Order: sequence, then C-alpha cells, then structure tokens
Amino acid sequence: MYDIIIIGAGPGGYEMAERAGHKGQKVLLIEKQHLGGVCLNWGCIPTKTLLNSAKHYVHAKEAPEFGVTTGDVSFDLSKAMAWKQEVIETLRGGVAAMMKRSKVDVVFGEATLLGSRRVQVEETVYEGENVVIATGGSPFVPPIPGADQPHVMTSKEILSVETMPTSLVVIGGGVIGVEFASFFSSLGVTVDVIEMLDEIIPFMDDQQAAAFRKALKGKVDFNLGCRVTAIEGHDVKYTTPAGEEKSINADIVLMSVGRAPNLKDMGFEAAGLDFDRRGIKTDDQQRTNLPNVYAIGDVTGKSQLAHSATRMGEVALNTILGKQDRFRTNAIPWAVYSMPEIAGCGMTEAEAKAAGHTVETASLPLIMSGRFLAENGKRGPGSVKVVKDADTDVLLGVHMFGGICSEIIWGVAAMIEAELRVTDVQEIIFPHPTVGEVIRSAMFQF
Amino acid sequence: MYDIIIIGAGPGGYEMAERAGHKGQKVLLIEKQHLGGVCLNWGCIPTKTLLNSAKHYVHAKEAPEFGVTTGDVSFDLSKAMAWKQEVIETLRGGVAAMMKRSKVDVVFGEATLLGSRRVQVEETVYEGENVVIATGGSPFVPPIPGADQPHVMTSKEILSVETMPTSLVVIGGGVIGVEFASFFSSLGVTVDVIEMLDEIIPFMDDQQAAAFRKALKGKVDFNLGCRVTAIEGHDVKYTTPAGEEKSINADIVLMSVGRAPNLKDMGFEAAGLDFDRRGIKTDDQQRTNLPNVYAIGDVTGKSQLAHSATRMGEVALNTILGKQDRFRTNAIPWAVYSMPEIAGCGMTEAEAKAAGHTVETASLPLIMSGRFLAENGKRGPGSVKVVKDADTDVLLGVHMFGGICSEIIWGVAAMIEAELRVTDVQEIIFPHPTVGEVIRSAMFQF
Repeated sequence: MYDIIIIGAGPGGYEMAERAGHKGQKVLLIEKQHLGGVCLNWGCIPTKTLLNSAKHYVHAKEAPEFGVTTGDVSFDLSKAMAWKQEVIETLRGGVAAMMKRSKVDVVFGEATLLGSRRVQVEETVYEGENVVIATGGSPFVPPIPGADQPHVMTSKEILSVETMPTSLVVIGGGVIGVEFASFFSSLGVTVDVIEMLDEIIPFMDDQQAAAFRKALKGKVDFNLGCRVTAIEGHDVKYTTPAGEEKSINADIVLMSVGRAPNLKDMGFEAAGLDFDRRGIKTDDQQRTNLPNVYAIGDVTGKSQLAHSATRMGEVALNTILGKQDRFRTNAIPWAVYSMPEIAGCGMTEAEAKAAGHTVETASLPLIMSGRFLAENGKRGPGSVKVVKDADTDVLLGVHMFGGICSEIIWGVAAMIEAELRVTDVQEIIFPHPTVGEVIRSAMFQF
Repeated sequence: MYDIIIIGAGPGGYEMAERAGHKGQKVLLIEKQHLGGVCLNWGCIPTKTLLNSAKHYVHAKEAPEFGVTTGDVSFDLSKAMAWKQEVIETLRGGVAAMMKRSKVDVVFGEATLLGSRRVQVEETVYEGENVVIATGGSPFVPPIPGADQPHVMTSKEILSVETMPTSLVVIGGGVIGVEFASFFSSLGVTVDVIEMLDEIIPFMDDQQAAAFRKALKGKVDFNLGCRVTAIEGHDVKYTTPAGEEKSINADIVLMSVGRAPNLKDMGFEAAGLDFDRRGIKTDDQQRTNLPNVYAIGDVTGKSQLAHSATRMGEVALNTILGKQDRFRTNAIPWAVYSMPEIAGCGMTEAEAKAAGHTVETASLPLIMSGRFLAENGKRGPGSVKVVKDADTDVLLGVHMFGGICSEIIWGVAAMIEAELRVTDVQEIIFPHPTVGEVIRSAMFQF
C-alpha cells in the first residue's frame, strides 16, 4: 500500500513525487514512456536547447559589431540535435537519480484508474491512499484536409527534423508557434505564421505584441486573422480577414494551434471521474470529484505551464499532508523563449480593465538600461509595461519583451504575492547596471 | 534660488535630479567633467560593454559545442573600445536629454560649498534651499614604491588601454579586480591576482568564492594572503603568507585595492561639514551635520554601489519633500560582472551568524536547471545558497554565482524587503525552465 500513486512523470508528477518522498511518504510514480514528460523530452527543454544553439549562431553573426571577428558562421543541425539529445538524456538521468534519492518507486507502463485507491499497470494492481493524475496533454491537430501528410508536424516531430527546411509555415501563433518561428527564422529559414485571432500570444500585452512582431519584420511574416482551410501538398491554403483565398508554399508545416488534455484509455470514465474535453475538474486544492483522487498540470486545463503543474502538485501534497494551501493564478509568471524573449506576470492592462480595476500603466523601452544598450546595440527592441490599480496603488502586473526577460520576470511573482504597492517597490533597490532595473524605473514614471 | 542644488552628476546625483524635476522641484546639477559620473564614464558601463564583447568572443569560441561552426575567432580591441565609447556617449546624451525633460539646470565646473545654502562654481554663487553632495569616489592608490609608473593603472586608465597586454597582475581581488581579471583572462591574457586578505570579494559567501576561484583555474592565478611590497619595472614583488618573497612579471599592473571618497578642494572643511577619511557622516535620511545639506553615494562611505547612491538620493529627496523614508542596507543586491557572474542579496551565512541568528542554509548547483545545462554545458560552474533564520524561517539572504545571475538576484531584494519566510517563497511560482528557479528548488532542501 502506497501513500501516494502518481500517474505521469512530467514536471507535475516527478516534482510532487520528489517532494513527497523528501517528506517521508511512500510514493509510486507511473510513467508510460520517459521520465520528465513532455516538458523535458519534447517541450521546454529541447526547444530551449535548440534556441541556445540558435542564439550562439546569432551572436557569432553579430559579434563583429562588438569587436569580435569570426570568419564564416554556419549552423550544423545534426550537431545541435545531438547536443539537444545529450541534454535530454542527462536530465532524464537526473530525474531518475532524484527519484532514487527520494525513495520513490518508478514503474513504466500504461496506467488504468480502477477507482479511488487502485491503479493497474499491465497485470499488476497497485493500491494507494491517494492517487494523483498528472497525465499531461498532447498537441491538438485540427481536422484540416491534408494535415495528415508527413511534412505537417507538431512540436514533437519538428524537434527531430533531420534537414534544415528552406521554408516553414507555422499554423497558430501561440507560445509554441512563436518559439519555432523565432528559431527557424534566426537560422535563415523563410517563416510564415498563420494565426486565426487578431494577435499572437493571447495573454501578451497588445502593444508589446505589435512591437514584437515589428521587431521580427523581415524574418517572420505574421498573417493574422487568417483561417487555414487545407494543406494541398506543400501549399497551405488560407482565407484572409478580407475573405481572399491565399496560399503559401512551405517545406514543412508546423501545427501549433493548441494542446488537449490526455484523458483517453486510462479508465477515467469507468471510474466515474468528472471531466470534459477541457480537462479534469478540480477544486483549489486539486481534488477531483473522486475521494482521494487529485489531478494536477495540463490534464486539469487550468494552466498549461510546467511550473503551474509543479505548483499544483505541491498544493495537492500539502492538502494530503493536512497543510492549508491553494492554487492561486494571480501571479503565475510565463515566458516565451524567442529572440527577443517575452515574459509576463500578473494582469495585462486589458485583463485588469476587464476585471473591473481602474488601471494606470507606465512603460519604458529597455534601451533605458545601459547594460541592455551595451549588449543589444542601439536598435535592440524591447520594453517594460507596469500595470497598477490606480485607486489602491497595488501592483497588478508587469509585462516585458526583449533581452533575457525570462530570467528577470520571477521577482514580479514575489512582489504580486506579497501584495506590494508601487510605492513599496520604489523603495526596493535593484542592482545596477541590469536590464531588470527598467521595471523599477518604469514605476517612477507614474 | 533653487529648491535643490546637487553637486555631482553620477547615478546618485543625476537620478535624484530627474526624480526631483519630475516632482516639480527647481534643480541645479553641477558636474565637473561628464554627466553620468564614474559609473557611466569609467565604471559600470564601460566595463560591462567590454565584458559583453569578451562574452561574444567566448561564445563564438564555444559555439561548436552547440552546433555552430565559425572560422578563426579573434578579438579586435580597438573595435571593442570604439563600441564602448559609443555606448558611453549615447548614455551621456541620454542623461542630458533626461535633465532637459525634467527641467534640471546643468552647470559644468568645480563646485565649492560655501555653507548650508550656497555653492560657488567659478565666479558664480548659486543659492538653494537644499544642497546635496554627490561627489563620489576615486581609486585609492596605496604608497607602494613603483606605483607611479605608466604601466601601473587604475580601473580608469586600463579602460582606455590601446594594445592587448600578454600578461596582467591585478593588485586587489575585490569586485573591480575580479571583473578585469575575468575580462582579460577570457581573451587569453595571463592574469595573476594578488590579494592581501584570505579570500576574494569580502562580501561573497566563502564556499562560493572558493568554487568561483576553482572555476577560473587555468585562466587566473589567485595569490591570496599576499602583500605587494614594490613594483620594480614590470616585476611585482610580494610576500606570501609563509613569508616568502616572490615576484611576477607583467605588461600591465592594475591597482584595484579600493576606492576613497572625493572630499578635497570643495570647501567642505571651511563650511564645517563633518567628515573623516571614510566619508561624510550622514543619518538614515542622508542628512549631514549642516542644516539642509545632504550627502549621497560613495562620498558617504556607506555603500559603494551605483544603485545605493540612487536610492540614497531618493531617500534625501523624500526627506526634503516631507515624505518618511530611510536608507535601509538589509536588502541591497550586488553583482560582479565576471564570467561566470556573481551576485548576492542580504546576509551571507557568516554575516548572519555574526549578527546573532541561528542560521540554516541550503545550497544547490545551477546545473539542476535544465536551461542552465542547455546553455552552459555539463561542466558549467555555479550554485545558489539560501540563508534563513532557523527560528523564524525568515529569509535572510541568497547568494549565487554562475550564468547571468546579475539579472536574477533582484527578486531576492523584493522578498527580503517584504520579510517573506521560506515557506512563503515556496508558494511563489517561478517560471520554468529558468536558471532562477534553482533559488526556489534550494528552498525545498530545508
């Protein structure tokens, strides 16, 4: 009898297993394929590793501007892929070692939920006081004619492409679409993004989204408000907002219109679990409708981010251990690992207005930072936008793009969680010279 | 009659002038040489610009590891220096424009303090309700025989060196010494650091300092506990801890043993200002002993950091405007822009123990971060150390080295200022995959 059985070893499942083991719980972790889940094997980590290679390429290309001569610079896809594979395998080994250290039992195989306390893997039935469903999600492929051709790929297949394409069409301008558009375009590939909505990345500040697209002008063509109707051979057919029928030819088509929770073939329906196509229903403590059964991560449909999954796992664990906790969504930072990067935390101006706040904002370009200028040159794109409640002065959100803002944004989560007002933040000292201090400077614009 | 007269246009003076002008104060800013002070002209900004060039060199050299091939990589010092100069001039222009926007009058010349409300520049006497002394500091050159030779330089002269040396001896292993050691060694220069104390960078965590030195093994030789006795021609003579007399030959010698406040020839003594060789005495609101006279930044000897100077200026301004404020020193982040970078905020383990806390610490290597691995390779050095009060669980400090931790550390200032406990931080969501999330992971080691 285990204390906790966790189905799925992504960043929700394996982190929860580690923390539970650290606290002395007897834990079983079930994984159908690889430790680390989508994030480590086919998501965050491989994309960031490839983007690092692309950044080295871009930096080597721009190096003469800063006094470094390099000769011809070229990108070796197979070497970059080999390094990506090495990173994945190193990290997988790291997760395995972590499970061992935390005395977590790991079983590989497909799990079936038999009820509140029983899970079957092949012929074996495991029993646990608590069961945690962390089965994640998968790329959603819409029923577009021609989407089943081999050169139409999801993020999973494109991560193993063996030859550099000369052209790419990305269907869907969300986080995944923008990251791959940035990666391939930085290496000289002609890239078109086709997005059904009026703007890319739905949770990004509107003005920054427009400025970001402008920064990629000449590298990526963004076709907004356009609906793909069919993929005929290598021609992607779409309808423009004006109703025109157009077509773009591409070596590879990336399908990145969204992700769907993994809910099938695991006995959820038979066990009486409450879910719909958006995910398993959970309360603020990640409880499902079944007693002692929790769900965390992408499969809940609450927040499709690795760090949200981890946090949901911690909330579930605290709940199991009788410690009060709650999954809060007001201060979840997010990042897009494009070039330039994009990051945000808290509400955008639009979200704050929609939530009924009297909103005041302040913006500054990152070029205000001496370090940013030194590292990015005079035309380096990027900005910070601070959103506050005008009545209470409370900080509601910070949104950025440019430089390595993915590493800067986390402090905003601390500020929002601590419910700081802008006048409080003005008294906090930021280090100089950094890019991050533009957040503080922006607050002095109010 | 001005509301505020500020002497010195460094990051203390010009930021205060801007904020005061923004609030409608009539401000005069007096500068004897260049807007931006040491930080912009001979300190933070030029060093970071040159380090950026060196980073491009190092990245181009390591690029093959990540799948990017280049021709021969070489460093063109004159081009790097030209870019450095362009950055300086751009930022100087930025400060001038900022002063204009804030309606700050700027006068160039040497200032003499005539009393509480009067400052003379050449033949003109200016009157102000308040006077702020922000005259900064200068490199301290100890009276070592031979230190007056032209190849013995301070950080100011070495920033304009025209030929790349083949060897460099750095006297003094503080922040400035370590940054230049890192810069020149990364470009292939043989570098020796001679430090009188037992360890480099006094406010760095001991274990991390040792690990940092190890990471630079083969590039920089650190000679600790050694006292320089003379510089005979190009031979730097020193005594080891065991009493041995040794000598290192070097093209250039950098003298970086510390900085002293600028106090001379400005009428401070005649005006009756209370100061000693460590600086002008100030209270928590930056008041001096003279009514309506404030002092901020390096000249106070309180904290030799650009962002501390800026904050002291804000405190002085708030005090002048009747708003309660206080210069607090418990959460001042700092960074060393070496390769790898070093950063910290709050107390080190040693400082916390000395302050009487029951201390508990947790450390993790940065290689725990998938992103760090992807970007730095398997041998990338770096770690995070978290210091907490064991009785109250309150976070006291975070210390890091590795990667671009200078951009990550700021959030720690927010957490310490908000007086968060470690259990509070455990509930804050950090974005994945980032290097910064190792701070959070370390907190789960308690």
